[in-house]
Amino acid sequence: MEFERVNLFETFRPVMFINGLLLMVLAISMSPSLIADLIANNPDWQVFAASALVTLMTGMFLVFSQGGAELELNIKQAFMLTTTGWILMAAFAALPLRFSNLDIGVTDAFFEAMSGLTTTGSTVLAGLDSMPPGILLWRSILQWIGGIGIIVMAIAILPFLRSGGMQLFRTESSDMSERVVPRIKRMTGGLVLTYALLTVSCAGALWWAGMSPLDAIIHAMTTLSTGGFSSHDASIAYFDSALIEYIILAFMISGSIPFIVYLKFMHGDARAFARDPQIRGLLSILATMTLMLTVWLVFKDGFPVLDALRLSSFNIVSVISTTGFASTDYTLWGPLPLGAFFLMTFIGGCTGSTSGGIKILRFQVLRMVFSNYVWRLIYPHGVRANSFGDSPITTDVAVGVLVFTLTFVVLTGLVGLVLTSLGLDLDTAMSGAATAVANVGPGLGSIIGPTGNFEPLPDTAKWVLAFSMLLGRLEFFTVLVLFTPGYWRS
Amino acid sequence: MEFERVNLFETFRPVMFINGLLLMVLAISMSPSLIADLIANNPDWQVFAASALVTLMTGMFLVFSQGGAELELNIKQAFMLTTTGWILMAAFAALPLRFSNLDIGVTDAFFEAMSGLTTTGSTVLAGLDSMPPGILLWRSILQWIGGIGIIVMAIAILPFLRSGGMQLFRTESSDMSERVVPRIKRMTGGLVLTYALLTVSCAGALWWAGMSPLDAIIHAMTTLSTGGFSSHDASIAYFDSALIEYIILAFMISGSIPFIVYLKFMHGDARAFARDPQIRGLLSILATMTLMLTVWLVFKDGFPVLDALRLSSFNIVSVISTTGFASTDYTLWGPLPLGAFFLMTFIGGCTGSTSGGIKILRFQVLRMVFSNYVWRLIYPHGVRANSFGDSPITTDVAVGVLVFTLTFVVLTGLVGLVLTSLGLDLDTAMSGAATAVANVGPGLGSIIGPTGNFEPLPDTAKWVLAFSMLLGRLEFFTVLVLFTPGYWRS
Repeated sequence: MEFERVNLFETFRPVMFINGLLLMVLAISMSPSLIADLIANNPDWQVFAASALVTLMTGMFLVFSQGGAELELNIKQAFMLTTTGWILMAAFAALPLRFSNLDIGVTDAFFEAMSGLTTTGSTVLAGLDSMPPGILLWRSILQWIGGIGIIVMAIAILPFLRSGGMQLFRTESSDMSERVVPRIKRMTGGLVLTYALLTVSCAGALWWAGMSPLDAIIHAMTTLSTGGFSSHDASIAYFDSALIEYIILAFMISGSIPFIVYLKFMHGDARAFARDPQIRGLLSILATMTLMLTVWLVFKDGFPVLDALRLSSFNIVSVISTTGFASTDYTLWGPLPLGAFFLMTFIGGCTGSTSGGIKILRFQVLRMVFSNYVWRLIYPHGVRANSFGDSPITTDVAVGVLVFTLTFVVLTGLVGLVLTSLGLDLDTAMSGAATAVANVGPGLGSIIGPTGNFEPLPDTAKWVLAFSMLLGRLEFFTVLVLFTPGYWRS
Repeated sequence: MEFERVNLFETFRPVMFINGLLLMVLAISMSPSLIADLIANNPDWQVFAASALVTLMTGMFLVFSQGGAELELNIKQAFMLTTTGWILMAAFAALPLRFSNLDIGVTDAFFEAMSGLTTTGSTVLAGLDSMPPGILLWRSILQWIGGIGIIVMAIAILPFLRSGGMQLFRTESSDMSERVVPRIKRMTGGLVLTYALLTVSCAGALWWAGMSPLDAIIHAMTTLSTGGFSSHDASIAYFDSALIEYIILAFMISGSIPFIVYLKFMHGDARAFARDPQIRGLLSILATMTLMLTVWLVFKDGFPVLDALRLSSFNIVSVISTTGFASTDYTLWGPLPLGAFFLMTFIGGCTGSTSGGIKILRFQVLRMVFSNYVWRLIYPHGVRANSFGDSPITTDVAVGVLVFTLTFVVLTGLVGLVLTSLGLDLDTAMSGAATAVANVGPGLGSIIGPTGNFEPLPDTAKWVLAFSMLLGRLEFFTVLVLFTPGYWRS
């Protein structure tokens, strides 16, 4: 059997076309920062103007040079689009960061942009409190764009790519699986609207609770996107307000439940939230962990009950939703909370939300797979069917979820190992790898812990972490597939 | 559908009968220690005599009270036998340790016995160099018995229990799967003989290389069983001999390859070793890791090449074979080697050997499952068959291996978390959990590292670790099955 090389240019024309459109959107997204710096009389507005122009021109070039590109995508093109789209966006998003008055290098700018777009929220910047509004807004906008990007991707693209068991969410018959663009078009409007409404509500609530309008907008955007960038070095601890923490807590949860459920609810399904198994699973995990940690803090460390509840609920929701805001340095609570926060890094919110991590759905599938597995050890000839909601859990889904979860854990270990080879201590390396792959934000240890910062890490470590964020955000296989010979055969 | 409770006594009569036989073997195994202490004029000989008597009587009681128990086992009985057998053996094996002049408590005695029988090799004892021969011999004999026990179990019982993908090694048709005892009887003779011959060769070589006869016997038994108990606090570093290290290295590898291959070889299959995929996989992993670490030690830490080779090869083989001898404190080599040794803890030798860990076979199956998985992402409608040697890798095997590996990693994380709740620091807790579940021996950190000792840990941590060793040794599901309601239904 002979394999012909693909005509790369022809195959990837629609990919370039859509990437061009994405860059144009990115360019337009720079305008709020431009305006904010103009108003604040900060010279960085010129950097935003120039960056927007370069990004817009590149986007337009990609769009128009492809002329009447077929807007339909096949599987290979969809894989190529997700990876190249995210990298291109991060590269152009880094422009204002690189050339502003921040005076940071290419590495730091790309790291911060990738951390933003993947809604990770690890930062290399300090002195946020005195930073001009343009940059602060830009970081938040990146997370906000990344958040809606991942929702659309998880609902419209991943199920069709069958990555990590996501075929569970395929609603069309498999014959229709080649038609991804109509699906995106049909759903995107409602999703963006929902996302925007939630963000506006969150901003309003935060403003009402005492934040400045700018802080309220910035934190609303990074809360709904479960991103976690703040406009203060001390993160949410800066505000020292239980009210603000509980508002953010509620909206972090809103950002980590499946957005399709909002659409169902708005289409009249009053019990949509209550019936969704992932939401029930997420809430019970959050409640259980909070309860346990609260008890620990009260009895072991002598915290007053309400303080313990406030501290543990906020920081647990922050880590499990993969937001990464900090209201205190929980790494000082001793080895058990430290270990618990490390393991919670892996959990994540629901699929189809802005959350990272392994995600609730997969834990629920895993529980069924394990229980079935043990049952079959005792009854080797027995047959038992599992389902998730209305969808049967086929062997394909089971293997997909198992492979995904194992890849998550093993890849985290290997990234951690690479980081140790760059001189990072074991805790920093392993928690840094986990927080990047799960798109959480802060790690453990004195350097990258919740009160720390990624700036001191060596440049190579920042590139490794940025690439790990991308891998985690795109659920590994959409990226890894590009490195297989099979992908490049026609 | 009604479920009747099982008549426990009737069902488990053959289990009690075989457990009785095992205890009688254990009692007889105490005689070398008894004799050694008699010769050395150490009063502990009475402890061994009394322990042997109690163990023998209990064994005889179990055997004779079951009268003409049917020696055939069904699946449920086989599960019950593996778990209760190992726990009973550890409990009675702890008697001489508890009542000897060591002056240790029940916890320490049980920990040491379980660490011995599971061939883990973590120790709570210090001052080994001046310890009487009876106890030193006893610890080694425990590892030696545990080693042959796991070989027989892996070859005769696990494939038939279909645990963790082990059905790959089922040679009979599934209709025959109920007949486990004839299978054990048929193969055990050859296996024990091979194991004994290898041990004698190892002891001879070590004696020739300069060890005292007692040291040679002790280390031969703990080398072939990949156990790692030593008669010196400094472990193999005590001998300070490259020759001894390379002899032990070779026999650690002999202990971690599938013992069935020795039988094939002796039945005339001259290329049995060369053809076994697991052996090839193990050797290439060992060679690759050794090469990489040697290069690192030479270029980063400035070791002379031969020293670097000697140190890295010995300690890598020791950890991957799950023996756990130490020839140096490799935790001082910096973060990368530290991280590498942590990850190597999980690897393990081949299935059907005395090794613990995830094991080479499973990594080989995983590689195929992953490559197949990625291939199917690109070609959703393609079909590709995988095989391991002559056996096809069915979905059942794939799921078994995936579930096993994930359980290994997740369980290690959870055990680590439990250990942090007992006050252990994160490194000690996580590496302690990994080294126990993988049956390796030493952990990382200043307490339980290669030059450390498990004695300072709190009692609860020792029980948790001892139970983790058992779980890992019995490959989880043979134990976990007993905790499911389904097991207890008739």
